[in-house]
Amino acid sequence: MSVSDRIDQPMLLLNEVTARNNIQRMVEKVSRAGVRFRPHFKTHQSAEIGAWFREFGVERITVSSVEMAEYFAANGWQDILIAFSLNIRQLERIRALAGKVKLGLLVENLEAINALTQTPHFAADIWVKIDAGAHRTGVDWLETGKVADLINAIAQLPDLNFKGLLTHSGNTYHCENAQQVVSAFREGVEHINLVRQALQAKGFGKIEISVGDTPGCSLCNDLSGIDELRPGNFIFYDAQQLAIGSCTAEDIAVAVACPVVALHPERREVTIYGGAIHLSKDILEVDGTTSYGLVAFAKGEGWGAPVPGAFVRSLSQEHGILQFADDQGQQLKVGDLVCVLPAHSCLTVQLLRKYLTLSGRVISTMN
Amino acid sequence: MSVSDRIDQPMLLLNEVTARNNIQRMVEKVSRAGVRFRPHFKTHQSAEIGAWFREFGVERITVSSVEMAEYFAANGWQDILIAFSLNIRQLERIRALAGKVKLGLLVENLEAINALTQTPHFAADIWVKIDAGAHRTGVDWLETGKVADLINAIAQLPDLNFKGLLTHSGNTYHCENAQQVVSAFREGVEHINLVRQALQAKGFGKIEISVGDTPGCSLCNDLSGIDELRPGNFIFYDAQQLAIGSCTAEDIAVAVACPVVALHPERREVTIYGGAIHLSKDILEVDGTTSYGLVAFAKGEGWGAPVPGAFVRSLSQEHGILQFADDQGQQLKVGDLVCVLPAHSCLTVQLLRKYLTLSGRVISTMN
Repeated sequence: MSVSDRIDQPMLLLNEVTARNNIQRMVEKVSRAGVRFRPHFKTHQSAEIGAWFREFGVERITVSSVEMAEYFAANGWQDILIAFSLNIRQLERIRALAGKVKLGLLVENLEAINALTQTPHFAADIWVKIDAGAHRTGVDWLETGKVADLINAIAQLPDLNFKGLLTHSGNTYHCENAQQVVSAFREGVEHINLVRQALQAKGFGKIEISVGDTPGCSLCNDLSGIDELRPGNFIFYDAQQLAIGSCTAEDIAVAVACPVVALHPERREVTIYGGAIHLSKDILEVDGTTSYGLVAFAKGEGWGAPVPGAFVRSLSQEHGILQFADDQGQQLKVGDLVCVLPAHSCLTVQLLRKYLTLSGRVISTMN
Repeated sequence: MSVSDRIDQPMLLLNEVTARNNIQRMVEKVSRAGVRFRPHFKTHQSAEIGAWFREFGVERITVSSVEMAEYFAANGWQDILIAFSLNIRQLERIRALAGKVKLGLLVENLEAINALTQTPHFAADIWVKIDAGAHRTGVDWLETGKVADLINAIAQLPDLNFKGLLTHSGNTYHCENAQQVVSAFREGVEHINLVRQALQAKGFGKIEISVGDTPGCSLCNDLSGIDELRPGNFIFYDAQQLAIGSCTAEDIAVAVACPVVALHPERREVTIYGGAIHLSKDILEVDGTTSYGLVAFAKGEGWGAPVPGAFVRSLSQEHGILQFADDQGQQLKVGDLVCVLPAHSCLTVQLLRKYLTLSGRVISTMN
């Protein structure tokens, strides 16, 4: 029985060769630049896939939650940064983690540091989260005084080691081409370096800089002014990254295999078993069209190139509607599998919770 | 320790009293109309919550997947309709189910019936899925000939019992007020009744009609021309249903309790731990503003009324940004819990996988 014959409901296919190539390319790039690599594991969320990074010499990782830190700590990772502003409701779990691994934490306000002061102390590296212009969260990069106050407050707690300034150039996700990405990424790096310079002018000592977003890390060759890089999505990429220009279609390492349940050739649509609970409702915007992903036909044990003009037009809980630009949808029959290149691979992994490699091996995640 | 003190990460709160009231109201309405009730369990996905329906005399249920049918069959439900067009890749699992429970299936094309012909037979009720105007999937209601062909093909398989015509008036979800909903819902019912009449004029015998969508079932008092109702979302409702007018804010039975991690009063924003992996990226459109849900302050062991003008402005994987219209966000402190009334409760349940009742009991789901 072939791998595809075993698929009876939406399943996340993983091209292991492509994913490993994506890891290798980023490892080499970061290594050439002499920057420390701390890949974000929120994309794959898998101990087994995490081990592939170890083969490339990676020893430090980034996660997005305490739960994820606990999972990877239990799977042998010893140097973990939780890249999410400290949630003071989780201090007990964080303290337990700090007893097991070298832990990095993020703070962006005095309330978080006060909470650390008022509980039994533990050792951790502390990064100050800087808003370098994306305005999601963090201390505004223009508020150098606030940053200095935070560093001074951290210094009052001898177990804590102020490590540096961290930002996520989330605005690169809204760029439409490589040039815009490079410009937005470098602007963020320059802003955070201005904060560092201002602080050092005030007499603060060593301050490292940690940045990381897949578009910037993929497209920008100038990594000056950066001590640590934390991209995550690059291991799989996805249709959003393809649209931004961070990757080619061949670099996309995951696709959701979905059974075809109905054909509507009169409106060039195909109904698939594959909905919002499989693909997520994260969107892809290309040339004024909003969709939830691109469409590829099954090919061998994997998938082919994206079908020109075809996209996931709508999603309800379990249904997906594929829209074709021409008659290519008529290649499909009821019961076939069709592959969706998801808008956002991280959210799709979170929903589908396991992978099926093209050789038929199931890989689990923390979920 | 209070219930809220035990919450350290995004948690789905369930007001059991409100949910039971919502069930009771719909049961009474359907009963008054003399219509058969087959509530959709894809919203709550929980054996324990399913049992609440039994207390109101419900014995027949709707589910959206084979997996969900298997779960509820294992939890004692004996009459289950899988309201998703037959996925012929799952015939073995469907046959196993048909050996255990009275099973209803949906077909919308001859390919599905041919697949049933070519495998070992099993007994099931068969509904023909009609597209009554929403254009998601199903046989277009104007194509009476196609429907007749399907019924004739079903009749060739003696184990299968053609039951009737089924539709989902999905377009009521895009309505902006009660009047539009009633009009869209009744239009769908009329269309499917025209199909029935045309078929009966051709000599087909008994044909039942099954419809169901929460806006229509909540707002339309005229249930004539309907044999079976299948709403699901009404047990919890959500911010989308509130916007449509299907419910009041007091009828919303679920909210996601999220820890506050940062305050940005200068732009009236609050950063919460609660992102796309907790709330889903389904959107809420109110007065030209697109958001992912409404905001309520914690109150007692539950939550209060939606804060006027406040909404979830953006979501990334783990972060949510709350936007306030005024200074009300300043009531919140870092470490507080704030409640989000999600845009779409079904997808939020799917993501969070368990409930915490206001009395502190954890209720599991199939996930």
